[in-house]
Amino acid sequence: MNILIVYAHPEPRSLNGSLKDFAVARLKEAGHAVQVSDLYAMNWKAPIDADDSLAPRTGERFDASLASMHAFENGLQSEDIVREQDKLRWADTVILQFPLWWYSMPAIMKGWVERVYAYGFAYGVGEHSDAHWGDRFGEGTLAGKRAMVIVTTGGWESHYAARGINGPIDDLLFPIHHGILYYPGFEVLPPFVVYRTGKIDAARYAGIRTALGERLDKLESTTPIAFRPQNAGDYAIPALTLREDIAPGVTGFAAHVRDAAEAR
Amino acid sequence: MNILIVYAHPEPRSLNGSLKDFAVARLKEAGHAVQVSDLYAMNWKAPIDADDSLAPRTGERFDASLASMHAFENGLQSEDIVREQDKLRWADTVILQFPLWWYSMPAIMKGWVERVYAYGFAYGVGEHSDAHWGDRFGEGTLAGKRAMVIVTTGGWESHYAARGINGPIDDLLFPIHHGILYYPGFEVLPPFVVYRTGKIDAARYAGIRTALGERLDKLESTTPIAFRPQNAGDYAIPALTLREDIAPGVTGFAAHVRDAAEAR
Repeated sequence: MNILIVYAHPEPRSLNGSLKDFAVARLKEAGHAVQVSDLYAMNWKAPIDADDSLAPRTGERFDASLASMHAFENGLQSEDIVREQDKLRWADTVILQFPLWWYSMPAIMKGWVERVYAYGFAYGVGEHSDAHWGDRFGEGTLAGKRAMVIVTTGGWESHYAARGINGPIDDLLFPIHHGILYYPGFEVLPPFVVYRTGKIDAARYAGIRTALGERLDKLESTTPIAFRPQNAGDYAIPALTLREDIAPGVTGFAAHVRDAAEAR
Repeated sequence: MNILIVYAHPEPRSLNGSLKDFAVARLKEAGHAVQVSDLYAMNWKAPIDADDSLAPRTGERFDASLASMHAFENGLQSEDIVREQDKLRWADTVILQFPLWWYSMPAIMKGWVERVYAYGFAYGVGEHSDAHWGDRFGEGTLAGKRAMVIVTTGGWESHYAARGINGPIDDLLFPIHHGILYYPGFEVLPPFVVYRTGKIDAARYAGIRTALGERLDKLESTTPIAFRPQNAGDYAIPALTLREDIAPGVTGFAAHVRDAAEAR
């Protein structure tokens, strides 16, 4: 497989840095081709703005979506954006690796999403009608590819449990899993989470590597999270709410994951 | 009151720009002092890194928390960070205004949080023991102040409903409300949300201004979201999970909001 790791950490000699190096080595040993977008090392420009086009239309009102569409359709995207889109097209599997900062991905990675996910590439794709609300949530440019998050937290696992003060980790990651990865078409694998990073001795580190290695070995066979495709009947269009007979009474993020009991 | 608006949009002539201008005028008319941190106009540096200290310790392994603590304690923070912390100390109420991009705040605003929220300022504050897990979630440097989010979305209100495909807006905003605002001490007011920004005619725009104006007029009297303080007995420490007798059986983000029925 071709595997892209999008990685955001400012220090190579960190836990994240060593896990990234481990992942690259493990994947290459298994015969995969690996590319890494090391956002801090690349000095990735985070904010989306008019300069993301090679020919910004000066004087006009800047609309991020329209500017993105215009640049994408006319070959006017800045080169750093084009390179990342090419890596995404090349990849069979994409890994996002980052420390959880203030309950989400680092700003520099959020800026990667905002700029690389152009209109026409990651959104604004496909037919838009009363039966089909664009190719998204299960369809789209990146359909057929897999994605997985590798994330580290300073907090303990119990802090991210079902009744933990931070909120459940699956809910904190939902906007990334469902809103950033499933949206443009990825199948999303369960995340690999390392908790309590301030307390990692040699034995725990060895265990983390072993567990991560096993997850990397099974990238092609792991069952993805069973998110519901948007245009396959579960949602009313254009309201995009779940139909009454689908997971009746269930609300919130969990409603968008098919129950194991649902025969499909 | 002193009011700080932290604002992230690249185009002054946008809906967000006009609502920001409207808010500033409305608040000043009511006699408040207003400052605006216009992050795009300020060319705010988004990524946290070693250069956030005036005396980066070259050659050492960069640890974002330790470097932040060292710079904060020793007066070595970069000036842009100090200025924003001063504004936060000055403010009685802080408004975060932004378009919802990929289900969260823009990268440039996330980078404001990461860099301004120094160790010793917004986290790593207070006693850390088996009875008190730091001054956070209801206590902290910013306790006694109020905060509110003003957010715009391209998607429809139904897409963000309890069973809408994007997930409920309150859940999408929980990591910001609870994790970024309540964490360092703010009381958090319900958000002001503008949906379906692509379809706003003059009549709708007038209605939005009226509704926003009413919210701004009531900043001091609006009842905050009833998040549960961390150190007041609802949570077991150090597990930081809700005690069994608190909202029994409830899981997820909603468990961290006191029910109106709870006598307290």
